[in-house]
Amino acid sequence: MGGDFGPQVTVPASLACLRKNPDLNLIMVGDEAVLGNLLSQALVEFKGRISIQHASQVVEMDEAPQKALKNKKDSSMRVAINLVQEGKADACVSAGNTGALMATARFVLKMIPGIERPAIISTLPSTFGHTHMLDLGANVDSSAEHLYQFAVMGEEVVKAVEKIERPRIGLLNIGEEDMKGNEQVKAAAKLLENSGLNYIGYVEGNSINAGSVKVDLIVADGFVGNVALKSIEGAAKMIGGKLKDSFSQNWLTKLAGLIAYPVLKRFKDSIDPRLYNGASFIGLRGLVIKSHGGADALAFETAIHLAEVEVAQGVIRKISEKLELALTQKVDE
Amino acid sequence: MGGDFGPQVTVPASLACLRKNPDLNLIMVGDEAVLGNLLSQALVEFKGRISIQHASQVVEMDEAPQKALKNKKDSSMRVAINLVQEGKADACVSAGNTGALMATARFVLKMIPGIERPAIISTLPSTFGHTHMLDLGANVDSSAEHLYQFAVMGEEVVKAVEKIERPRIGLLNIGEEDMKGNEQVKAAAKLLENSGLNYIGYVEGNSINAGSVKVDLIVADGFVGNVALKSIEGAAKMIGGKLKDSFSQNWLTKLAGLIAYPVLKRFKDSIDPRLYNGASFIGLRGLVIKSHGGADALAFETAIHLAEVEVAQGVIRKISEKLELALTQKVDE
Repeated sequence: MGGDFGPQVTVPASLACLRKNPDLNLIMVGDEAVLGNLLSQALVEFKGRISIQHASQVVEMDEAPQKALKNKKDSSMRVAINLVQEGKADACVSAGNTGALMATARFVLKMIPGIERPAIISTLPSTFGHTHMLDLGANVDSSAEHLYQFAVMGEEVVKAVEKIERPRIGLLNIGEEDMKGNEQVKAAAKLLENSGLNYIGYVEGNSINAGSVKVDLIVADGFVGNVALKSIEGAAKMIGGKLKDSFSQNWLTKLAGLIAYPVLKRFKDSIDPRLYNGASFIGLRGLVIKSHGGADALAFETAIHLAEVEVAQGVIRKISEKLELALTQKVDE
Repeated sequence: MGGDFGPQVTVPASLACLRKNPDLNLIMVGDEAVLGNLLSQALVEFKGRISIQHASQVVEMDEAPQKALKNKKDSSMRVAINLVQEGKADACVSAGNTGALMATARFVLKMIPGIERPAIISTLPSTFGHTHMLDLGANVDSSAEHLYQFAVMGEEVVKAVEKIERPRIGLLNIGEEDMKGNEQVKAAAKLLENSGLNYIGYVEGNSINAGSVKVDLIVADGFVGNVALKSIEGAAKMIGGKLKDSFSQNWLTKLAGLIAYPVLKRFKDSIDPRLYNGASFIGLRGLVIKSHGGADALAFETAIHLAEVEVAQGVIRKISEKLELALTQKVDE
């Protein structure tokens, strides 16, 4: 029910995913009347693979997370996360209110033992293909230990999603030299150096999209990570707008635009943010994927697909096992 | 002598500025032999408006700031800042090592009474034209009071450079709602709300380049501001690279690129980072402008021009007066 467009987007995206992946089953959570109407055909076409779970409430996009948690116990978001908690669903995908989704997920699913803070991880395009980054806004004022835990969790996600053995991990900082940075980052670097992870050192903001060396996972405090993510969104929007403006000046530039259209189209596709939609909440005892609120059907499909991959790869189980191992080693020391 | 290209860039840029502004006088600080050679003609052409001040050392781009401060007492950077301190120059412009330049400027010029931390301020392009932002990396872990002081100093810069009365000031945060953010930002918001400044509230990273409302000055901690700035640089580099790649695929796309060339050229010019080169160190008792290390002559010209404007507008004096007033009011309370 969530996001800027609700079922108008989530329903067609879900049906497209059901068509593409015969192993996928979906439980559509929300207003039974609305969903039943939109899904009447699909319930026949995908018999046994799609069902509706009624939820009488919807969390508004600007509702305070604690209020939603308290007053909306039958929201689509809450019911969907309950399904994960009860083992009836392997993951929850939502385009709803991020803060409320995180608060509800924390409350219902609880943290993996040993993890102090959940984190939000997603992928961003880069000149090397793409890179994963966390935390994108679940936390502010992360300690060195938190940053270290983000790296441990993030590594499991990258290994599972990318199918690479030892992801290259960088720590976001304001310079590449040892002396640079704030206290948390400097202390986190020490933890990462001694961790056995494939830690490659500090990376700067420009390394997210266009660094000089490939980095598979960038670790940052959620305040910093969120600002970086949004700054990149703003830059892309401004640059795209100026490019469009340049081709809209007069009939001559419009003609040039028409001739260059296939090239411009391919360029646009190569940085299409819809292909990067979907952020995973990790550190919880269940998988929750957050789609951008403004996602269209194609973008929401990407978020569902991310859930399929992470479920198939057992990301949550792998994080739990890794953490259990790390905790056992700590006790042994 | 500094930057990636040294006098090969700084000298032609300086001569271009002397040509454009008849009121400008320049003291070129560095190796007398090197500069004398490059400037032999200019010393005649701009007789009385350009001179050479010898400095026997150069701070390397990767030299530790404290080492440079201790061991390079006759560096071009140090001698140039000394000239400002002695009142022989109105400003120092350098493309050298940022950390060393800041450490030297702090040591030689000292802080304006009442200012606890210097800050780095610069302009970035936006869909509304451009916006100023500070701090871009002079500080990490800024307190609420520091952020407030950045706003007070930044306002004077924006007023002077843009010639507007009440710049619209935003505080960089990870959401626009009151409850969002870290403790420092929330406390800084309270200070700004009660300050008499034209404070418009929280802005997110995307507002730097492409916000929904115009903001003239964005205030952030130096760690966050630097990451945002570099993230935008990386995004622009990646997008520019992908656009170029799209037009380089085959003879057909190359032909399209040729036809669209004037449009693409105008687009490129509209986001040319060289037109935004130059960051001011503020909070010090003298003006120091830092050019990007990789600046070419056009970019370095922009940095010199920024110094001209800030000197003509008496930015440092205005910040001092404003701070003195603020301090007097505090004592009065």
